[in-house]
Amino acid sequence: MSKIRIGIVGYGNLGRGVQFAIKQNPDMELIAVFTRRDPSTVQVNDDSVGVFLMDNVKDFKDKIDVMILCGGSATDLPEQTPQLAQDFHTVDSFDTHALIPQFFEKVDKSAKASDKVGIISVGWDPGLFSLNRLLGEVVLPEGNTYTFWGDGLSQGHSDAIRRIEGVKNAVQYTLPVKEAVDRVRKGEQPRLSTREKHTRECFVVLHADANQEQVEQQIVTMPNYFSDYNTTVQFISEEEFISNHSGMPHGGFVIRSGVSGAKEQQLMEFSLKLDSNPNFTSSVLVAYARAAYGLGKAGQSGAKTVYDIPLGLLSPKSAEQLRAELL
Amino acid sequence: MSKIRIGIVGYGNLGRGVQFAIKQNPDMELIAVFTRRDPSTVQVNDDSVGVFLMDNVKDFKDKIDVMILCGGSATDLPEQTPQLAQDFHTVDSFDTHALIPQFFEKVDKSAKASDKVGIISVGWDPGLFSLNRLLGEVVLPEGNTYTFWGDGLSQGHSDAIRRIEGVKNAVQYTLPVKEAVDRVRKGEQPRLSTREKHTRECFVVLHADANQEQVEQQIVTMPNYFSDYNTTVQFISEEEFISNHSGMPHGGFVIRSGVSGAKEQQLMEFSLKLDSNPNFTSSVLVAYARAAYGLGKAGQSGAKTVYDIPLGLLSPKSAEQLRAELL
Repeated sequence: MSKIRIGIVGYGNLGRGVQFAIKQNPDMELIAVFTRRDPSTVQVNDDSVGVFLMDNVKDFKDKIDVMILCGGSATDLPEQTPQLAQDFHTVDSFDTHALIPQFFEKVDKSAKASDKVGIISVGWDPGLFSLNRLLGEVVLPEGNTYTFWGDGLSQGHSDAIRRIEGVKNAVQYTLPVKEAVDRVRKGEQPRLSTREKHTRECFVVLHADANQEQVEQQIVTMPNYFSDYNTTVQFISEEEFISNHSGMPHGGFVIRSGVSGAKEQQLMEFSLKLDSNPNFTSSVLVAYARAAYGLGKAGQSGAKTVYDIPLGLLSPKSAEQLRAELL
Repeated sequence: MSKIRIGIVGYGNLGRGVQFAIKQNPDMELIAVFTRRDPSTVQVNDDSVGVFLMDNVKDFKDKIDVMILCGGSATDLPEQTPQLAQDFHTVDSFDTHALIPQFFEKVDKSAKASDKVGIISVGWDPGLFSLNRLLGEVVLPEGNTYTFWGDGLSQGHSDAIRRIEGVKNAVQYTLPVKEAVDRVRKGEQPRLSTREKHTRECFVVLHADANQEQVEQQIVTMPNYFSDYNTTVQFISEEEFISNHSGMPHGGFVIRSGVSGAKEQQLMEFSLKLDSNPNFTSSVLVAYARAAYGLGKAGQSGAKTVYDIPLGLLSPKSAEQLRAELL
């Protein structure tokens, strides 16, 4: 059987994670990495994988089946996904929840015109957590869903801080508020504001000439990212940053607390404990690349989310195998 | 919008649970209950719902969209699902894992001939747990999946005991072995035999003339159900049974422990804590009835499992709503 041919667009933490994950999936092969940097400066540690400028991506129209986009949601993906969907199946991790509907429309238009499949907003949230939020409310319509994140470092939020002028490096940790979690697990179904569920802690290294007060204001007031949370910002030295904030752990849980027909308490919970957030997200992206390829072979096109995709398509196993081995 | 018209086949714990669950879903209505008993003896506590003999089911060919089958896997479903799929979309909770492939084939043949959709093996295991077993292995291909059940009463296993001659009533509790769970959650990825993961406890009330020793032997040697477990059987009085064993709690968890590309430990866990196992299973069946209807409207036919169904079809919300509100 021929392998699914993958391209990686953007070679940061996520891109490197995708490269790792492809090696764990024998039905896939990595063909090339695309970058906006000078390709000669990008080391992929694999002689069989070429590194090319984004400008040359169309040369690979017949050599790559699925492009996995590893850029950020703030500026990279809104431009790249609709563009690349003109020539390839795509998978991305667009995670600005509030802007998903308009992003979907743009990708859908582009992918439908080219008969390609563009799976958007893949990862663990949005992604696996989204699946569990849906399962919770369809199985227990009378109830409440709670998504908690952390303890952990949020890539998207750290990235957003690093884009602020004057910031040299930054990490952001999300911490669930313990009392809130305990009340939910007990089945109390409390009403919790965004602010009551999590706190956000930011550790920031500034450039020498940066305005500390301005940076802090820009962080805590940033819409979609920080403005709805109690956010603390600590400015630290580069040395402290490197020694204490180089890991990328994360996790969290989606809890549905509800009652079934005769008012019995029922609790569903999905949780993740991740030593590496980006490498886990990458692993999810790669599984959905298989689904993009499968949907394409089945004649589908347009933008898709995790809600549109039968989970069986994520597996290299046949439907018969899945029924016999896993159901 | 017209409602999805549901029929219930078999009115035991599961059937009553489906009736409850339909009331929680405003896009559905219960049309009729079908039984092999004398319909006049079946009280459904709802004047708008008729009770009919199974023999009359074909009269409802144009009045019911989806039949939810609430019989047992041992003898009811293997006969009923293929038969009813000739006239209706069906959803069932067939849960004899080892026999799923052949059951699928029979339902598929029948449902394809009639252009109906038959979703088999729905509930929490098989069902929601199956989805999580798949997600675990596709996202973390290097790892191990562990399914633990309990503490809780297993309907299917209790049912199997009750079918043994001489048994008046019975319950079976499944208990995860705590040491095994702890090792898995620590990321040790131990090899555990079926026997090392769970114990099964049975509480049985006998008829006056029953042979206690024979009943015990039939239980502990029953293939697919008990023969692979350390099973204890206690014979108790009817009074004790009623006062101590009338609840139907259950639960369990699916854990995937694996490593991503650079050998980071990653843990995925899905867990359920259920005060009523049958009413939870019923709620899952009802959500999948919506998907059966949706797949039928989309022109699909044949047998399906949870692996074949986009989760978005479980929801009464449109794809646009799901993207905006839930993703």
